[in-house]
Amino acid sequence: MLGSTHGTLTTDSRRARVIACGEHPGPAVHGRPAEADDLDVSGRPLYADVPDLDRFFRPESVAVIGASDAEGRPNTGVTRQLVGWAERVGARLHPVHPTRGSVFGLPCSPSVADLPEQVDLAVLLVADPLPVIEQLAETKVKFAVVFASGFAETGEEGAAAQARLAAAVARSGIRLLGPNTNLNAFERFRDDLPGPSIALITQSGHQGRPVFALQELGIRLSHWAPTGNEADLETADFLSYFAERPEVGAIACYVEGLKDGRSFLLAADRAARRGVPVVAVKVGRTEAGARTAASHTGKLTGADEVVDAAMRQYGVIRVDGLDELQDTATLLARARPPQADGVVVYSISGGTGAHAADLATAAGLTLPTLSADRQAELHQWIPAYLNVANPVDNGGHPVGDERGRKIIDAILDDPAVGVLICPITGPFPPLSDRLVQDLVDAAERTDKLVCVVWGSPVGTEPAYREVLLGSSRVATFRTLANCISAVRAHLEHHRFVSDYHSPFDEAPRTQSPSLRKAQLLMRPGQQLSEHAAKQLLRAYGIRVPREQLVTSAAASVRAAGLVGYPVVMKASGAQIAHKTELGLVKVGLTSASQVRDAYRELTDIARYEGVSLDGVLVCQMVERGVEMVVGVTHDDLFGPTVTVGLGGVLVEVLHDAAVRVPPFGEDQARDMLAELRGRALLDGVRGRPPADLDALVEVILRVQRMALELGDDLAELDINPLVVLPWGQGAVALDALAVCR
Amino acid sequence: MLGSTHGTLTTDSRRARVIACGEHPGPAVHGRPAEADDLDVSGRPLYADVPDLDRFFRPESVAVIGASDAEGRPNTGVTRQLVGWAERVGARLHPVHPTRGSVFGLPCSPSVADLPEQVDLAVLLVADPLPVIEQLAETKVKFAVVFASGFAETGEEGAAAQARLAAAVARSGIRLLGPNTNLNAFERFRDDLPGPSIALITQSGHQGRPVFALQELGIRLSHWAPTGNEADLETADFLSYFAERPEVGAIACYVEGLKDGRSFLLAADRAARRGVPVVAVKVGRTEAGARTAASHTGKLTGADEVVDAAMRQYGVIRVDGLDELQDTATLLARARPPQADGVVVYSISGGTGAHAADLATAAGLTLPTLSADRQAELHQWIPAYLNVANPVDNGGHPVGDERGRKIIDAILDDPAVGVLICPITGPFPPLSDRLVQDLVDAAERTDKLVCVVWGSPVGTEPAYREVLLGSSRVATFRTLANCISAVRAHLEHHRFVSDYHSPFDEAPRTQSPSLRKAQLLMRPGQQLSEHAAKQLLRAYGIRVPREQLVTSAAASVRAAGLVGYPVVMKASGAQIAHKTELGLVKVGLTSASQVRDAYRELTDIARYEGVSLDGVLVCQMVERGVEMVVGVTHDDLFGPTVTVGLGGVLVEVLHDAAVRVPPFGEDQARDMLAELRGRALLDGVRGRPPADLDALVEVILRVQRMALELGDDLAELDINPLVVLPWGQGAVALDALAVCR
Repeated sequence: MLGSTHGTLTTDSRRARVIACGEHPGPAVHGRPAEADDLDVSGRPLYADVPDLDRFFRPESVAVIGASDAEGRPNTGVTRQLVGWAERVGARLHPVHPTRGSVFGLPCSPSVADLPEQVDLAVLLVADPLPVIEQLAETKVKFAVVFASGFAETGEEGAAAQARLAAAVARSGIRLLGPNTNLNAFERFRDDLPGPSIALITQSGHQGRPVFALQELGIRLSHWAPTGNEADLETADFLSYFAERPEVGAIACYVEGLKDGRSFLLAADRAARRGVPVVAVKVGRTEAGARTAASHTGKLTGADEVVDAAMRQYGVIRVDGLDELQDTATLLARARPPQADGVVVYSISGGTGAHAADLATAAGLTLPTLSADRQAELHQWIPAYLNVANPVDNGGHPVGDERGRKIIDAILDDPAVGVLICPITGPFPPLSDRLVQDLVDAAERTDKLVCVVWGSPVGTEPAYREVLLGSSRVATFRTLANCISAVRAHLEHHRFVSDYHSPFDEAPRTQSPSLRKAQLLMRPGQQLSEHAAKQLLRAYGIRVPREQLVTSAAASVRAAGLVGYPVVMKASGAQIAHKTELGLVKVGLTSASQVRDAYRELTDIARYEGVSLDGVLVCQMVERGVEMVVGVTHDDLFGPTVTVGLGGVLVEVLHDAAVRVPPFGEDQARDMLAELRGRALLDGVRGRPPADLDALVEVILRVQRMALELGDDLAELDINPLVVLPWGQGAVALDALAVCR
Repeated sequence: MLGSTHGTLTTDSRRARVIACGEHPGPAVHGRPAEADDLDVSGRPLYADVPDLDRFFRPESVAVIGASDAEGRPNTGVTRQLVGWAERVGARLHPVHPTRGSVFGLPCSPSVADLPEQVDLAVLLVADPLPVIEQLAETKVKFAVVFASGFAETGEEGAAAQARLAAAVARSGIRLLGPNTNLNAFERFRDDLPGPSIALITQSGHQGRPVFALQELGIRLSHWAPTGNEADLETADFLSYFAERPEVGAIACYVEGLKDGRSFLLAADRAARRGVPVVAVKVGRTEAGARTAASHTGKLTGADEVVDAAMRQYGVIRVDGLDELQDTATLLARARPPQADGVVVYSISGGTGAHAADLATAAGLTLPTLSADRQAELHQWIPAYLNVANPVDNGGHPVGDERGRKIIDAILDDPAVGVLICPITGPFPPLSDRLVQDLVDAAERTDKLVCVVWGSPVGTEPAYREVLLGSSRVATFRTLANCISAVRAHLEHHRFVSDYHSPFDEAPRTQSPSLRKAQLLMRPGQQLSEHAAKQLLRAYGIRVPREQLVTSAAASVRAAGLVGYPVVMKASGAQIAHKTELGLVKVGLTSASQVRDAYRELTDIARYEGVSLDGVLVCQMVERGVEMVVGVTHDDLFGPTVTVGLGGVLVEVLHDAAVRVPPFGEDQARDMLAELRGRALLDGVRGRPPADLDALVEVILRVQRMALELGDDLAELDINPLVVLPWGQGAVALDALAVCR
């Protein structure tokens, strides 16, 4: 059963299923939650510990190494800020300096060995942190922060210094933030703001600044982790820690590069299991995606598309701009779970309502037509000639009196309505002040989502600054675009988490019998012949045409008799690509004489082209179906990835493909097909029968199993074409290319 | 020559050329600028007068009919605002009321007949404007405004009332704004603001409010035309008037529906000729596009895609959000023509710069790598380990002293640089205040474009409110996305206008000899047979295969001999569609006996399917090429449109097509091909030869000529497939469908 074409699937079909494989798949451990030492069959972890960072963010005692209060010293400002922060969070601060007796009135220790107590956190302001880390190892300090720059961000030499630092940290047992980080973690977090908070993770301090500034608009921030060069603690560590914090409503991330793909996915999985939304800017839309690939599928998707797919697999909401990051994270942190997917646009102007409804619908939101009864109710207060079906246009005046509140309540009372969006294009105090107050009041009385777009570019109006920003229940936006994309993210997030089953729980941990057969076929560093590549597929239970590899004209005639006429004949050998272009394929051969001639012709061409053959394949002809490509490519960050695309020359031009990072379940395999722009071809067009989608999904899952079991040994695999026959008839791999590492 | 794949073409290829057609095209008047009474061959105007609206916007005397100063009356507030406005613009205001002696101290006339002078403008505050319009006709008033609602916006009855009003206005010679409009034209326009202005046209007053509010941010607005129901004056009238005003730097429009497609395009053409940028929100992204179409191309594009294409043809910049409308119009109004297309991103943080550069590049902007010399110069002030190639990262500190200004000047001094974008993620006054001041100062000294993205969500910071908004030379944005899209619009606008040749100057005015032949083939209200449709194409010089229509088996064999073996045979008759699915096509017939059998089989199937035939076509087989579709569809707003798409089953699924509104030149025909996602197929893939693009362009232009000459008589035309042969070998229409009106 294929789900809807919008990439969303019913709960039933979303249920992850066992990834079976091979002709006689062996028993495998499935459905068991992963534990600390679990690895999947590719050797990648299925579990990551959550680092206990309580003492990092709320230490009882802190040492500041390199503290200073001397005028004009750069460390003085930093020390002053740390002293203030320690006071706010109630930590004891111990300055460390070889020569000073005290810093800002606090007694100073000459070295870390002389600290008056075992500290939770050491902040290193020194240019060369390595020796201090080695000294700190003795003191059993839990956490260290290194501000110094000049490491991996500066080039090779810096990278070597960072590697030495990382090694010292690993030996010490200390968890390190940095190097090349800053004071962001020790900012002033307002504790007077209500509601769930945003926790922020950034690799660049500057890029987190606008999210942090949301506090000035009344939005609660609880943490900021400026991960810097990530010599030890990385984005994933903070992500999983924040996902476990009860006060955190959403996690906002700014990511330039991920240290480790699997760690990130495991952390995102933890957030998804706990229903905590993660919103991320990931730089790299224009990444060259410089994967070298011999196969066709290898060229279909770039590195950024893999990041994109991986994030979607775990429900991470990717946005492009910092303004979107702010608006989406704020809404997701604060909004309660939606009671319905229906969105109503409500405005004091028909034009404004029509514009907002148009853009909301274009973005994929559902705007239900309100029931006749509801419309009649609204027409008690709204003139009869105005449209109240949705968008609801009140024509202006009703918001100026008690009707305004009744209208809002009536809309929110509708069971089809989960979200109300009210765009206000500009202040017109007699109406807009009352409207804003009614919306704020209504939001207090409902669990449904009330959104206001304050469209004035000025932004100093009291209705905005005081009334709207004063409410933590109304979601206030400055642009309609950001409102619409945040609402969509909110609805999608809740759909996602309610259907979520962790693929790590279902990932194969043990080798299947297929692997032993497959390993016999692998030739390290080589591209396999078509015949060998197809045997690899066969080992994993993927259907290939009946075929025989022959090395004489006479044998080819005997093979044709066994395979059954008509036959296809192809030159077979390692390192052959583009067989069709070279004339190394003969189709539709119906007699022994044609087969004999074809054998001679193929071997002549091969000789002429200088191609070395291991023989000629005599293959069964396969009926027509939908041509697809299915393949495996190795991604630097995430390891093996599985791609599916439409075959044929047009799609080679259009690059219509979908990619996933293993492990993934049947739900994701079906989502891949739903993502294809040309997916209607699979449903049958121009009277053609629908294709066997179940068989196609099965092939995708078997290819995934192969990718996981062969792991890094399989550099590339490309089934091109996979012919998907009409419903119930299966799918056949007509050609395959495999490259071993 | 095909231009770049980004939809932009070199100046040479953009030069519009004569749209020749027919086998012996007759002389036509080309290259002559259009005059008042010029019509194109379809009967549509090639010229529109610019209404003289000076006295509307700056009247010397104004009558207010229905004026009031009685407390609690709705007209009182309106009258008060009009009195204040008249004082500001120096107009004499004459209240008109049947019973009052004076209104707000101004002597009142009992009726318009009693006005003390001939007025320039009459503002009607009465509920029923029709009788007043009739009275005003006597007084020779130039302009009237009708505020009353209850017309076309309320349904059929209102539409009839509006039609009566429009008829009275037409008889009177008065130019009318409204009905269902408002006071927006009489707002307070600040005259203390420098630089070119934005002129605003909106159909909904509320939707113009945020653009109008830009004045509070120091951005100059000069006009606001709230067009309401457009019973007389429409968006196009104001567009062409504003395009002629010297103070107007850009025109911002909010359009719900266009009254007349051609009027809008003629006005947009005027703006394009004068180089005045037009930025428009056009509601209707989700318009159903409910065009009923028998042909394939008719279903390829919806009504909104036609609007989109028409706007692009005349350089109108379409945006979705009101915030984009504000930001783009502001930049385009103020920025000087670009000296280079190169964009440099400059920031105090590597992360910020990388993020901005990534998104700018993804949006299609060009970020040139700065020369080694320039980089060396920048490294005088910026530490050596920081990247200054572009993005330029200064690491922070250099902006705090005199180096900051030197860096900016050095970047702007580079001849490859036309635009500098500086994203500032948050206020850090020691650095950001100085940076902002340096950018403002630098912008005063250069003609190049300096853009700042003030990323703080707070927006009350003095560096933003006072310094940045205080400068009319720096373009200030609140989001990176809007900055990038405005910069792209700016660069594209100047490229567009510098290459612009009005298609109205080149449009065919006289009938070609082809038309007489074509008219003989037309059958009003009918779908033509394939044979007749192909004769229509042949009349316009479009190549079709050699073919004969026969009505007996014997004749079919004679025809095959004349056409030449192998042949294709097809049932031919009016109202036949989907021939292939019905088995009404036989290909690859190589002998008389095959032809004879095919004739019998085709006529048998037709009889069985109940299809009435005018005969059987015996056609030449055509070699393989790239299959395209080219067609004509009738758009309710713009009349005939020309569509080109890739043929074949995959593109039927993918809807890969481009549409244009005639008249257009060769440049636009080539742009259509550049827009196709699968355009690489035309360039040759997998070793296939490149297709004959010139021949394809020629067919598009001939189809356009046919669409123009047959005008509304041709409801639909569909060439499907048009086989485009390899370069130099032409293009052949294998099948055609034509529907007459």
